[in-house]
Amino acid sequence: MAFEYFHFMSLIGVAFFAISGTLLGHEKNIGGFGVVVVGSVTALGGGTLRDILLNQPVFWIAEPDYLYATYGAIFIAVVFIRHLPHVSNYYMLLVDVLGMAIFNIVGIEKSLIEGTTMIVAITMGMTTGIFGGLMRDVICREIPLVMREELYSTACLSGGLTYAALFLLGVSYIWCILGSLFITVFLRLGALHWGWQPNIFRKRTVKNK
Amino acid sequence: MAFEYFHFMSLIGVAFFAISGTLLGHEKNIGGFGVVVVGSVTALGGGTLRDILLNQPVFWIAEPDYLYATYGAIFIAVVFIRHLPHVSNYYMLLVDVLGMAIFNIVGIEKSLIEGTTMIVAITMGMTTGIFGGLMRDVICREIPLVMREELYSTACLSGGLTYAALFLLGVSYIWCILGSLFITVFLRLGALHWGWQPNIFRKRTVKNK
Amino acid sequence: MAFEYFHFMSLIGVAFFAISGTLLGHEKNIGGFGVVVVGSVTALGGGTLRDILLNQPVFWIAEPDYLYATYGAIFIAVVFIRHLPHVSNYYMLLVDVLGMAIFNIVGIEKSLIEGTTMIVAITMGMTTGIFGGLMRDVICREIPLVMREELYSTACLSGGLTYAALFLLGVSYIWCILGSLFITVFLRLGALHWGWQPNIFRKRTVKNK
Repeated sequence: MAFEYFHFMSLIGVAFFAISGTLLGHEKNIGGFGVVVVGSVTALGGGTLRDILLNQPVFWIAEPDYLYATYGAIFIAVVFIRHLPHVSNYYMLLVDVLGMAIFNIVGIEKSLIEGTTMIVAITMGMTTGIFGGLMRDVICREIPLVMREELYSTACLSGGLTYAALFLLGVSYIWCILGSLFITVFLRLGALHWGWQPNIFRKRTVKNK
Repeated sequence: MAFEYFHFMSLIGVAFFAISGTLLGHEKNIGGFGVVVVGSVTALGGGTLRDILLNQPVFWIAEPDYLYATYGAIFIAVVFIRHLPHVSNYYMLLVDVLGMAIFNIVGIEKSLIEGTTMIVAITMGMTTGIFGGLMRDVICREIPLVMREELYSTACLSGGLTYAALFLLGVSYIWCILGSLFITVFLRLGALHWGWQPNIFRKRTVKNK
Repeated sequence: MAFEYFHFMSLIGVAFFAISGTLLGHEKNIGGFGVVVVGSVTALGGGTLRDILLNQPVFWIAEPDYLYATYGAIFIAVVFIRHLPHVSNYYMLLVDVLGMAIFNIVGIEKSLIEGTTMIVAITMGMTTGIFGGLMRDVICREIPLVMREELYSTACLSGGLTYAALFLLGVSYIWCILGSLFITVFLRLGALHWGWQPNIFRKRTVKNK
């Protein structure tokens, strides 16, 4: 059963990231199949890096389901964009939030299954959640969300720590997932809507350049 | 015999990409051995990612021939640039076109040899053809060709689909290669010379930013 | 004994690069845990790529020591920055110089241990030394040092060639390391302090853009 959850969540995460890549690609007026490239890289980048690091077969080569989910999500996004009057950056951030929250958990779990320690698993969760979006932003020459959004990586880490805490407390599987999802999404939506900014690690001598 | 073709085509592709990286590096006034770094990354990046994804030994570590081809092509490019009065961006695009067309095929073939399905193979061909040039553009802070050139990824995909179609029709090996090469080169040169632009995936509400 | 050296040097190199990433992250006003992300990528990027290319287990997954060193160094850097009145770019370059010189050697050694030829080993040393810093610059949207600094990659290559020459001459292990370190650091500090610029590979028709 655990495996089915895992598979299902990965598919959803892949689809969300594919959409976020497609939206940013459109926003940047990338022509032709360039949006498909950006969408695919965003959807598959984080998980690919995770599998390579863990020395596992790359997920979308082992199971082509993920490729179908990616291309399907991109296709749907493209169709909808053509009929939407106005695609704001907001939708892109929203799917990115959901994709990151899910990939974070998937990364931690896959890492724990491979027998790594918890600190490696949390690092792997962040890698999976952040890397796809980072490549999307680099390819599109957008300021990476890691730099732009104050709570981006903090939310990812908090989600990971929540999972770890619940996991070590022996809470059942489904609540680990829900708890982690809630924390990550809550923090990032909070930052988006109410402008939350963590004031840690801030320089004393502020300079705004 | 198939292997010899494969080896030979890979060497040619590596050399073309090495030259394209060197030309862009010069264009951007990168000093010292920086051009060698950019040239190497461009030449080896796509194939390296392909081999890592396929969980194969990385080609330039397994067979140092490719390193010699890379460094040799960079050296020749450097010597020629010193004696050319004017190196236009055009030459860079030309070698990039040829390199991409070849790497696309090499990527598809290597993937099929490893027993992947055709959809994975076509994705792998695009990865091999696009990734090296993408890293070149990112390092040199150039707008990636994926974004700039309308027909870039479309041509790569079309070449891959052509290969797949001919392959599935049972056409002999050499014609699969020639057909795919022709389509990719034809589409990209058409875009370069006559400004072809595919009008698919375009937003209704056009904004030129 | 060789292994202990190797382990110790890797830890020092990781710490230096972690600090350089943290410093640049702060310089660029990255908020929250974003600096931790940049610091980690800088510290672990080069070695991770090296291990993936060599098809070895990734070093920070196999031995979590490296993760502790990374996070520890980032934490110390963050604490110090809060109490330093002015963090100039100079410190960032200094730790980058030391990190690169060390990682270059570590990359060559690990590659030779895996039985590669010397030309592959030198390429691997440059990969290890350059890639982490390159990812740092790309994420922070800084002009990569490979492009900015004339002697950057030249120094790395010279250090590698020095190691290779001493190694082939049968000089004892510790002197290979010290010789290589000296050459790399000397060349880059020379470039920083006295503006050394190699005039190789320069175009005849100079244009300063």
